[in-house]
Amino acid sequence: MSRFLSKEAAALAPYTPGEQPQDQQYIKLNTNESPFPPSPKVLKALSRAELLKLNLYSDPTCGQLTEAIAKRYELQSENVITGNGSDEILAFAFRAFCGQGKGVAYADITYGFYKAQAALFGLDAKIVPLRADFTLNVDDYMDFPGTVVIANPNAPTGMAVARADIQRLLEADPDRVVIVDEAYVDFGAESCVPMIYRYDNLLVVQTMSKSRSLAGGRVGYALGSPALIAALNRVKYSFNPYNVNRLSIIAGAAAVEDEPYFRQCTAAIRSNRAWTVGELENMGFTVLPSSANFIFAKSDKISGEDLYRKLKENGILVRWWADAPRIRDYVRVTIGSLEQMAALVDETARLLEEL
Amino acid sequence: MSRFLSKEAAALAPYTPGEQPQDQQYIKLNTNESPFPPSPKVLKALSRAELLKLNLYSDPTCGQLTEAIAKRYELQSENVITGNGSDEILAFAFRAFCGQGKGVAYADITYGFYKAQAALFGLDAKIVPLRADFTLNVDDYMDFPGTVVIANPNAPTGMAVARADIQRLLEADPDRVVIVDEAYVDFGAESCVPMIYRYDNLLVVQTMSKSRSLAGGRVGYALGSPALIAALNRVKYSFNPYNVNRLSIIAGAAAVEDEPYFRQCTAAIRSNRAWTVGELENMGFTVLPSSANFIFAKSDKISGEDLYRKLKENGILVRWWADAPRIRDYVRVTIGSLEQMAALVDETARLLEEL
Repeated sequence: MSRFLSKEAAALAPYTPGEQPQDQQYIKLNTNESPFPPSPKVLKALSRAELLKLNLYSDPTCGQLTEAIAKRYELQSENVITGNGSDEILAFAFRAFCGQGKGVAYADITYGFYKAQAALFGLDAKIVPLRADFTLNVDDYMDFPGTVVIANPNAPTGMAVARADIQRLLEADPDRVVIVDEAYVDFGAESCVPMIYRYDNLLVVQTMSKSRSLAGGRVGYALGSPALIAALNRVKYSFNPYNVNRLSIIAGAAAVEDEPYFRQCTAAIRSNRAWTVGELENMGFTVLPSSANFIFAKSDKISGEDLYRKLKENGILVRWWADAPRIRDYVRVTIGSLEQMAALVDETARLLEEL
Repeated sequence: MSRFLSKEAAALAPYTPGEQPQDQQYIKLNTNESPFPPSPKVLKALSRAELLKLNLYSDPTCGQLTEAIAKRYELQSENVITGNGSDEILAFAFRAFCGQGKGVAYADITYGFYKAQAALFGLDAKIVPLRADFTLNVDDYMDFPGTVVIANPNAPTGMAVARADIQRLLEADPDRVVIVDEAYVDFGAESCVPMIYRYDNLLVVQTMSKSRSLAGGRVGYALGSPALIAALNRVKYSFNPYNVNRLSIIAGAAAVEDEPYFRQCTAAIRSNRAWTVGELENMGFTVLPSSANFIFAKSDKISGEDLYRKLKENGILVRWWADAPRIRDYVRVTIGSLEQMAALVDETARLLEEL
């Protein structure tokens, strides 16, 4: 470890992102991107005239983007903050709501970034195991006095929590912030957005990386009460006031305004998911019930590690976690285009026959 | 203050960015942007084919961009990390190198963000006053055991520190990290980049927001020893692995590769600066010696506040700090195009005549 590193930096737990080969020789089903290009309205909005203005700073309030998001969700601008991906928004939230005497709780099997960010701010983290069937039961969080973070649907399981359950958690302690990370909500879970006006301790985090085909644009946002949003802005202006660049503001606004394209893309993913689940189940796979743009599957015939490695050898990337004993048997497969899913199914069938 | 706010968030000192009116009715000389559009090579690089790939995550290592920067500065990729503007890079550095028992020192009159970020991480900050003539004397930092941050040239004064002085500071304590924030270095100060191979405790932070006409793209970077860069990556992967979006990676790489355009733009700014300084001095202004793309000026005839307000009323934005007693008499004026500077000079002359 470097002699320059602070104690706090030495204690960090950096996140390992999914492989991102830049040579495009793989069918990439490992980082839950959309297989569809961004909306044609995004391409139109990123005009030459806008590119010519890159010498000027972006609007630190991201007004155009926050207003477009507020309109889409029937909220006010004061209910919205946008960030450089939802990872940045989550970091703002961890700093804003957690600290000395205010810990954070999240599931043992969930988005790996919560752990990294808890370490970043030196927070006390309570790790709450999912039940044996991978369901998240909100009763397990009822007595926790700090901030609760729930990915809904959860990653990498894809399983959803009912809105009514999160409502119980919000009501049990009005002073406790509940962060619902809805990165994947558009593919089938119940969003908590309709409860924002009712519960000022609810923060909903979403992203344009999945259902809006803008992973490369890095646009995330949080929706919540003005008090929560003001707290997040306090952190943002202490960290990076111009946190969203000009082109991402424009692209994000155009994407959120194209509702027909959004519906078309998310419907295609649900349809492709249903087909893929059926095919894998026919091959004997156990597939957890997914409300996301990915599925979590295991087979008695081949280990998660072997499936991951053999698929990769044959040009298909899926995600497998070496260091998580509870889910070592599983692989997570992003739902892509029907052609991509057919390739996955064909290759998996071939690998099983070879055994 | 919100009941949800953590103690740490309550103690923050959020930064106030310069006004960013989005209606473009002002001549904007208040946030040190370039008056020139980005390089034509940037526009060409941001092709339709690239926009169509926005559904895919950016390369977390920002390989294309770090390699272009490394090549330009005759370094290796392991000497480079890129960020969502240099503000993000500075935050990474504050977390990586400072913490319990490792404070940070910076000048009383300097970039306001150091204070905000020191508060963000709860650091002990030592504020070191500039000398009476606004020079920064490195001897004032010699005995400080923590991390030293020096903006060179300094903002908002524009005044530079000699490389040899920073060298003395680096040599005085090889275990102390010295961060040299060279946001404005391309307009006339001595860069410390040539010392990177020699001193592994030197971190140079630069940005494409000023000399590369990419403020709206948010591209910052740090250059330093592999040990320092690895420490910064540790923080980055705990905060936001995909911290630079696809289009900014492409734009930044194209910008740094267009050396002739860079030279042309920075030469024009120096020339316009010399003209503006001459005109203001002819009107009786005191102008600090500037190595940056802005000047810091005061007049015995009009207060800083009045000049700022009256210029704004007449469509010209400059920057004035209400809360900093040492510099209340001054305004900071970004050096823009010759037309913009002529407008500033004419309007200032008119205002003085009106008195």
